Amino acid sequence: MALYVHKYGGTSVGTVEKIEGVADKLKKFKDAGHDVVVAVSAMSGETNRLIGLANAISDQPIPREMDVLVSTGEQVTIALLSMALQKRGVPARSYTGSQVMILTDSAHMKARIQDIDTDNIRADLDEGRIVIVAGFQGCDAEGNITTLGRGGSDTTGVALAAALKADECHIYTDVDGVYTTDPRVVDKAKRMDKITFEEMLEMASLGSKVLQIRSVEFAGKYKVPLRVLHSSKEGNGTLITTEEGSSVEQPVISGIAFNRDEAKLTVMGVPDIPGVASKILGPVGAANIEVDMIVQNVAADKTTDFTFTVNRVDYAKAEEVLTKVAKDLGAREVAGANDIAKVSLVGVGMRSHAGVASKMFDVLAQENINIQIISTSEIKISVVVDEKYLELAVRALHTAFDLDDDKES
Amino acid sequence: MALYVHKYGGTSVGTVEKIEGVADKLKKFKDAGHDVVVAVSAMSGETNRLIGLANAISDQPIPREMDVLVSTGEQVTIALLSMALQKRGVPARSYTGSQVMILTDSAHMKARIQDIDTDNIRADLDEGRIVIVAGFQGCDAEGNITTLGRGGSDTTGVALAAALKADECHIYTDVDGVYTTDPRVVDKAKRMDKITFEEMLEMASLGSKVLQIRSVEFAGKYKVPLRVLHSSKEGNGTLITTEEGSSVEQPVISGIAFNRDEAKLTVMGVPDIPGVASKILGPVGAANIEVDMIVQNVAADKTTDFTFTVNRVDYAKAEEVLTKVAKDLGAREVAGANDIAKVSLVGVGMRSHAGVASKMFDVLAQENINIQIISTSEIKISVVVDEKYLELAVRALHTAFDLDDDKES
Repeated sequence: MALYVHKYGGTSVGTVEKIEGVADKLKKFKDAGHDVVVAVSAMSGETNRLIGLANAISDQPIPREMDVLVSTGEQVTIALLSMALQKRGVPARSYTGSQVMILTDSAHMKARIQDIDTDNIRADLDEGRIVIVAGFQGCDAEGNITTLGRGGSDTTGVALAAALKADECHIYTDVDGVYTTDPRVVDKAKRMDKITFEEMLEMASLGSKVLQIRSVEFAGKYKVPLRVLHSSKEGNGTLITTEEGSSVEQPVISGIAFNRDEAKLTVMGVPDIPGVASKILGPVGAANIEVDMIVQNVAADKTTDFTFTVNRVDYAKAEEVLTKVAKDLGAREVAGANDIAKVSLVGVGMRSHAGVASKMFDVLAQENINIQIISTSEIKISVVVDEKYLELAVRALHTAFDLDDDKES
Repeated sequence: MALYVHKYGGTSVGTVEKIEGVADKLKKFKDAGHDVVVAVSAMSGETNRLIGLANAISDQPIPREMDVLVSTGEQVTIALLSMALQKRGVPARSYTGSQVMILTDSAHMKARIQDIDTDNIRADLDEGRIVIVAGFQGCDAEGNITTLGRGGSDTTGVALAAALKADECHIYTDVDGVYTTDPRVVDKAKRMDKITFEEMLEMASLGSKVLQIRSVEFAGKYKVPLRVLHSSKEGNGTLITTEEGSSVEQPVISGIAFNRDEAKLTVMGVPDIPGVASKILGPVGAANIEVDMIVQNVAADKTTDFTFTVNRVDYAKAEEVLTKVAKDLGAREVAGANDIAKVSLVGVGMRSHAGVASKMFDVLAQENINIQIISTSEIKISVVVDEKYLELAVRALHTAFDLDDDKES
């Protein structure tokens, strides 16, 4: 007998029929003798409907009232799921974020959880109930309703699992697990049985949009084993857990992430003096442009080239900011491109394998793919290439690093 | 400068445009220097949509969860109205029933208000805010969300007015006041400037469905002056208040109510012995049939006839119950009819005017309308007539008691 926290997203509870399906699944866990706490999202489309109402009134709706408004979405789901369970003879009780209570700070629309009172939940579990909690929402110390921002239901699930010291937190989605890379690009991509939090963070932030980054960080911090599962198909999904206990046979590379939403900018001929990096990035940050990769090579001839990547939608704005900065700094020129893509190898195994980078560059060279930028971290190597080579690069690397699913070959 | 509580029903906030209109109206009160607290219903159609979702899951949804579900309707409205006010530069803050808090008993779907904490509301008023409260809902001592049952938003408005000692409680509806009778039946029906709580109770319970009976009782008990107004038209509406201060020129009759949803049943030849009335009505009540008028005349020949009226939908069931009861009692037979209607004269003025009843009977006699049952109270005389004479009876009485609107004649 274990204690599970389940989280079902908007598409998993998008219709009354799907809610009944979730109730069936929960009943199985209960019948098997487990305790279950469930965090649910709003029915798909509902949050957007509510935001549409607000936008019909104001371009800039008051954040406090936005939270009052959109939090009704999850409140509808918890009530319906509780009814569906009780119809099946499974005792259940629903809780809004305020009722639990899930205490957050007062940053409306992007609140952070500070504490969870588990007394009511534990009492209900002791009485044999399944406890259903509205995801994405909480309340501050003054009793104002808050929301955690998009994807916050994952965070609710993980936070509940941490507070309750649950055995596992199950995140039910519309995919059956985390894949070595995007199956739409590589048809031999395969589901991973297990992945570490660190790897998942690199995969998630690089575009494998299965889980919210924040919830993975949170799960890693509190060592809550996370399992990604399909909400209507059977299967073991992918377990995201700590490195300890991982098999010695751990592959060097766990997965390949990629991102085509980037653009690169280079300030060329920057004087190589201390403080120049912050003089370039300061104005960029002040313009609310987020920077991803930053690369600066050693200086030659007392000047250097400073390159970074931004989200593609910010490309024009970043170029405008940089042109002014370059002039002030006496730099030679600003160059850039938005037809680029980033490809990253991710794996905790590469820590102890020096040859990964050279093998990666070799594979790309064999396909005649030119590498524009290289950036590395402990468990990741990222390269920027011409966007048109993205699929080719990912497929070649997937095969070269033995990630292909051989079942059907 | 006064303190007003406003209540806007579902049709008054049925669309974003209507909510904007309500915000305009509230701004006028605020600009005139008044304090305003607002109770609002769910946008029209929303409560039924939510109930539809519940019914798609279960024929008998759990009442606790129904309250969690349907209370989201008003929560959406308070957020949108607060946004609309703040867009107009009017400081505002929304509260759910739990946030206020409006403490109720735990009778889900038909809870009764026990207490209202006015601290937050007063603090907001002091800071110049309009306070917007979700109608129809509260929470019990354990923090469970409760609802007051259909029409409960009126009750919320009146309860807030009582707790805050407001100068007036305005109920905004889709009619511009309370009329002397239904204008669809009598085109010379006129709007009353003023009516007493007692009269309004008799009018409301007899089918003038402008206000919920419960909210009128509540307002009368706590002496909260109630004003019924049209939500989009200008006008003074109808003030419902205590008798004191009414003009000496008070008309004898204030209005004429009627009801065509009734049926009558008579147990004939009942032995005239003590306890017989409860032997007849006990089984009727046990069958969940509500009884309206009850008439028993003096006995003749040691038997009597016992007549009462019920809602027409309960006629067949009541007849079945009575047939058995009549047999047990040794009564002669059960007779009844469902093609009847009740017409009632209402007015506190009739207390001191003995001639009202005889004038009423005379007017009906002149129109050849036979009176089947007569029942009277302090401020009301009701008669049951053949349904086909209903409109004729109401029009004749409306003219005879000087209620006709002469403006256009």
